Amino acid sequence: MSKTIALIQGASRGVGLQFCRTLLARESLVHVIATCRSPDTASDLLALKNNQNVSDRLNILQVNVENESHIKVAAELVEDQYGRVDLLVNCSGILHPSGRGETSLKDVTLEGLQNTCSINAFGPLLMGKHFGKLLMKGSGSFGVQSENSKEQHNGILINISAKVGSITDNGLGGWYSYRLSKSALNMATKNLSIELGRGKNKVICVSLHPGTVDTDLSRPYHKNVKTLFSTEESVSKLLNVIDSLSLNDSGKFYTYDRQLLPF
Amino acid sequence: MSKTIALIQGASRGVGLQFCRTLLARESLVHVIATCRSPDTASDLLALKNNQNVSDRLNILQVNVENESHIKVAAELVEDQYGRVDLLVNCSGILHPSGRGETSLKDVTLEGLQNTCSINAFGPLLMGKHFGKLLMKGSGSFGVQSENSKEQHNGILINISAKVGSITDNGLGGWYSYRLSKSALNMATKNLSIELGRGKNKVICVSLHPGTVDTDLSRPYHKNVKTLFSTEESVSKLLNVIDSLSLNDSGKFYTYDRQLLPF
Ligand SMILES: NC(=O)c1ccc[n+]([C@@H]2O[C@H](COP(=O)([O-])OP(=O)(O)OC[C@H]3O[C@@H](n4cnc5c(N)ncnc54)[C@H](OP(=O)(O)O)[C@@H]3O)[C@@H](O)[C@H]2O)c1
Ligand SMILES: NC(=O)c1ccc[n+]([C@@H]2O[C@H](COP(=O)([O-])OP(=O)(O)OC[C@H]3O[C@@H](n4cnc5c(N)ncnc54)[C@H](OP(=O)(O)O)[C@@H]3O)[C@@H](O)[C@H]2O)c1
Repeated sequence: MSKTIALIQGASRGVGLQFCRTLLARESLVHVIATCRSPDTASDLLALKNNQNVSDRLNILQVNVENESHIKVAAELVEDQYGRVDLLVNCSGILHPSGRGETSLKDVTLEGLQNTCSINAFGPLLMGKHFGKLLMKGSGSFGVQSENSKEQHNGILINISAKVGSITDNGLGGWYSYRLSKSALNMATKNLSIELGRGKNKVICVSLHPGTVDTDLSRPYHKNVKTLFSTEESVSKLLNVIDSLSLNDSGKFYTYDRQLLPF
Repeated sequence: MSKTIALIQGASRGVGLQFCRTLLARESLVHVIATCRSPDTASDLLALKNNQNVSDRLNILQVNVENESHIKVAAELVEDQYGRVDLLVNCSGILHPSGRGETSLKDVTLEGLQNTCSINAFGPLLMGKHFGKLLMKGSGSFGVQSENSKEQHNGILINISAKVGSITDNGLGGWYSYRLSKSALNMATKNLSIELGRGKNKVICVSLHPGTVDTDLSRPYHKNVKTLFSTEESVSKLLNVIDSLSLNDSGKFYTYDRQLLPF
């Protein structure tokens, strides 16, 4: 198996876009499938695609993660073209449809909760539903393989979560929709780790907190942030964690510097 | 303050109906506001209302917990008529719109996730939004008061959660929508405990696991259950836990026998 196949969901901007850039720059020549809501207007992805060195290793597909048929069609295309996926990273996320987390209950609405949870938690879970079997055919080229063949994995599925999704760690409150969505996402990760870890072919499923990263999502809050990572820094750290994962880590929730977070 | 005011949301059947029955039978003469989707056809609640001994202490209001305007109108009615709430118990819940939890990813759909989370997590949170200020006016008649006046509480808000909503404890997987919804509900409880615990008037907010209880919700699974509680047993245990709560417990997740559950 020569090619390594990584799929980045939510790749138009921010952390997802940077995953594409950093993976395409790797020496190991990774093939990247970048999914986004609007391929025609994803200018940064299109610019990347125009770069001669990577153009034949970057495939841009449409996935609005709230639309299960997009996910299904993308999985069929990927199956036909590559036959498997080695790494899937779910990056899509919003703080809230308004762009700001709720500061108090008066801001909480059913629509805000539903939209945020659909994009941040339900969509990533549906990605696991449709890409699970392709990850089970993964080549095991990401992460650390055990000596014991029964403990070896095929693919890796990463959900980009957030520390504020830790119920245990929650000391400040607020950000209702975002916090609920990330707790739900962490449960999705755990459930996926069980279902996709049961067969002969196993998928490592992990939630990762990227730190506070300089992107559109966090922009309204930058002035209060102690350590703001560039997307390059965050993704480089996240890939170090991903490269270190083995089946023992499946179902867990780690920070960018591999600290275990409580749920 | 003579009357004690308890509001039971999701009171037409099962655990919620039993909360109404048991509270109305208490010596301390509790006034119960029972909310349900369809008051006109809630035959068990209507039968309870026909019981002479309790009829003037039972008030049935319509709340479909997916409809925020129902919640808002109910809160206005309760404010006018009672001025406060001492105990609010969110009981509404479904396993999945189909009546059965997903056994594997192939059963997972966006609609199933959205419906289950709306009824099990978002609705209870919106109840907290609209009833929070009435709970802050609670008389403190449920739970245990501290000697220290700064540590005293007014109302108590209970979300009926489920042990399968513990991400840490999840060993079996499946039941995707239900598990995600209860993790989200537990985050809602934690967030509510922070926002409603900040002011001079404080509300204790706790998630409780009722055990496996003989109701319509659990019916498809009864034959596999080791210990199946009657609704009377479960609610009696839950009320013992509620009667023992103090502000130190706020934001936590307990079983019917007061064991702390991890998130
Ligand atoms: N930035 C931080 O400080 C921080 C901290 C903790 C966790 N995170 C998490 O990191 C992940 C990436 O966020 P970011 O900071 O990179 O934010 P971002 O720059 O705002 O990017 C968000 C991405 O999500 C995509 N997206 C939104 N709705 C979508 C949908 N329905 N379908 C598919 N994609 C959709 C956006 O695509 P469009 O361009 O089409 O809108 C965009 O690519 C998120 O899960 C976020 O919660 C970020
Ligand atoms: N039974 C168990 O073993 C068990 C175990 C763990 C946790 N729980 C939890 O305990 C709680 C009570 O469940 P149960 O066992 O008593 O189930 P149940 O007998 O099926 O009762 C469910 C209740 O939820 C109400 N409901 C459903 N959708 C609603 C909506 N949109 N708005 C308002 N109310 C709605 C139902 O009202 P309608 O009559 O109008 O449908 C009914 O009163 C749930 O949160 C459940 O998750 C139960």
